[in-house]
Amino acid sequence: MANVAFIGLGVMGYPMAGHLKTKGGHDVTVYNRTAAKAEKWAEEFGGKHAATPAEAARDQDFVFCCVGNDDDLRSVTTGSDGAFATMKKDAIFIDNTTASAEVARELDAAAKEAGFHFLDAPVSGGQAGAENGQLTVMVGGDEAAFERAKPVIDAYAKMVGLMGPAGSGQLTKMINQICIAGVVQGLAEGIHFGKKAGLDIHKVVEVISKGAAGSWQMENRHKTMNDGKYDFGFAVDWMRKDLGIVLEESDRNGAKLPLTALVDQFYKDVQALGGQRWDTSSLLARLEK
Amino acid sequence: MANVAFIGLGVMGYPMAGHLKTKGGHDVTVYNRTAAKAEKWAEEFGGKHAATPAEAARDQDFVFCCVGNDDDLRSVTTGSDGAFATMKKDAIFIDNTTASAEVARELDAAAKEAGFHFLDAPVSGGQAGAENGQLTVMVGGDEAAFERAKPVIDAYAKMVGLMGPAGSGQLTKMINQICIAGVVQGLAEGIHFGKKAGLDIHKVVEVISKGAAGSWQMENRHKTMNDGKYDFGFAVDWMRKDLGIVLEESDRNGAKLPLTALVDQFYKDVQALGGQRWDTSSLLARLEK
Repeated sequence: MANVAFIGLGVMGYPMAGHLKTKGGHDVTVYNRTAAKAEKWAEEFGGKHAATPAEAARDQDFVFCCVGNDDDLRSVTTGSDGAFATMKKDAIFIDNTTASAEVARELDAAAKEAGFHFLDAPVSGGQAGAENGQLTVMVGGDEAAFERAKPVIDAYAKMVGLMGPAGSGQLTKMINQICIAGVVQGLAEGIHFGKKAGLDIHKVVEVISKGAAGSWQMENRHKTMNDGKYDFGFAVDWMRKDLGIVLEESDRNGAKLPLTALVDQFYKDVQALGGQRWDTSSLLARLEK
Repeated sequence: MANVAFIGLGVMGYPMAGHLKTKGGHDVTVYNRTAAKAEKWAEEFGGKHAATPAEAARDQDFVFCCVGNDDDLRSVTTGSDGAFATMKKDAIFIDNTTASAEVARELDAAAKEAGFHFLDAPVSGGQAGAENGQLTVMVGGDEAAFERAKPVIDAYAKMVGLMGPAGSGQLTKMINQICIAGVVQGLAEGIHFGKKAGLDIHKVVEVISKGAAGSWQMENRHKTMNDGKYDFGFAVDWMRKDLGIVLEESDRNGAKLPLTALVDQFYKDVQALGGQRWDTSSLLARLEK
């Protein structure tokens, strides 16, 4: 049992902090920008809540964080009343935000300078994975800090991997999103074509899903896509944020991502259709307009 | 045990005809444009070989066919010395060629007119699937003919599905190729990005392959792609043939396939790199040039 803080109680952070308390058995203090949600969490799970990130982080062994983007992350760490000001020596800051590799390296350097540890640890598995404590966690940072943090992270994860030095967790998450972009657009075109051709999509998937065309997305999303249901998981606005990070990073490392850039533009069309909160499989809706 | 003919002994047809003889226990007569290959097959498997498709098809219960394209298919069926001239009443012609839905409907109508049956039955699973008798077979045609043919087809298949009326097998194969185009390009961009970012691709796949980014291609091709080995299965020239069929059909049925059309153009780049016989995962080689 450790002393733990969790900063950022969004759709992901709220249940993740809950698992640290209930499954992990840790003493958890939460912070959220909108204080009412932190109070609600503390009441529901029997933990504490703090008024600032700095107050939440004080004297903790592990400080978790899951916020919106690079700016939010800088604000709750190195901003005024940020958590980095009060981190205990040798404590570990674990950032579950999907952010740039750049900010991860920057915060890793700041943490080292101040005598504590930073791990970038973005997750995949969506809201359902957060609620079930079955997330995949892609970690960048030092091995010793990773080994100490892993048993704590396990409370909300089914898979936790150390991918390399600071930033490597974020880079791995980027690969995840690149692959999803290709799979989902291909699947959307396949289903769109199949409907135009008058085929039974369920029968098609039954026959082809175990072979070279098969994917998690095909298995798990073809039904809802065929029914035009897009209220199922990770939202288009968030995917565009992630693809923006990917495309910026590719400008730095020189990777050519023509399909990823194109699919990002397609998601812009989905936003224009009013689909900001539809899930990523709504690329099909765009083809059908 | 039935009397069976097989027309077209390419990398797919040769072992498929072999399974009909050895696993199915049927009496098999083969025809191939280059006669030497038919003689070799007959010697290897202890079957018969014929000088023309018409001669091969005479008095058979089932006539299989696996040739290159629509023109080849018309030539061996309704061309001079074609199989359709000698098909027995109520016999079944099973076409394993990947061809257009149009030619399937045309040959189905011709078969009905002449008093026998036609099934379009393209396969997926590649050369390895053909050699192991583990192909997926997507069938279009009448249910009664399908039910009679299925136990015979089983000799070279792990999965045989009736998808709908004539042409539906071809249309299903098209969906298969559309989905593959998206998956492989996404995966190629993911691996390309990962290499530029200095990540260990095997470790990345280990962590992300069970989640929303996962696919058959990721599981089965990431190693060879990472090693730049593209001598593994279905060739770029063949994929371009298939995508050409897909894009033509989409002009008829009105489906919008922006990614499929783009990936087809990318494969043209791979051909220009000398990759006509590289496998479909060589989209990565194009990104790396």
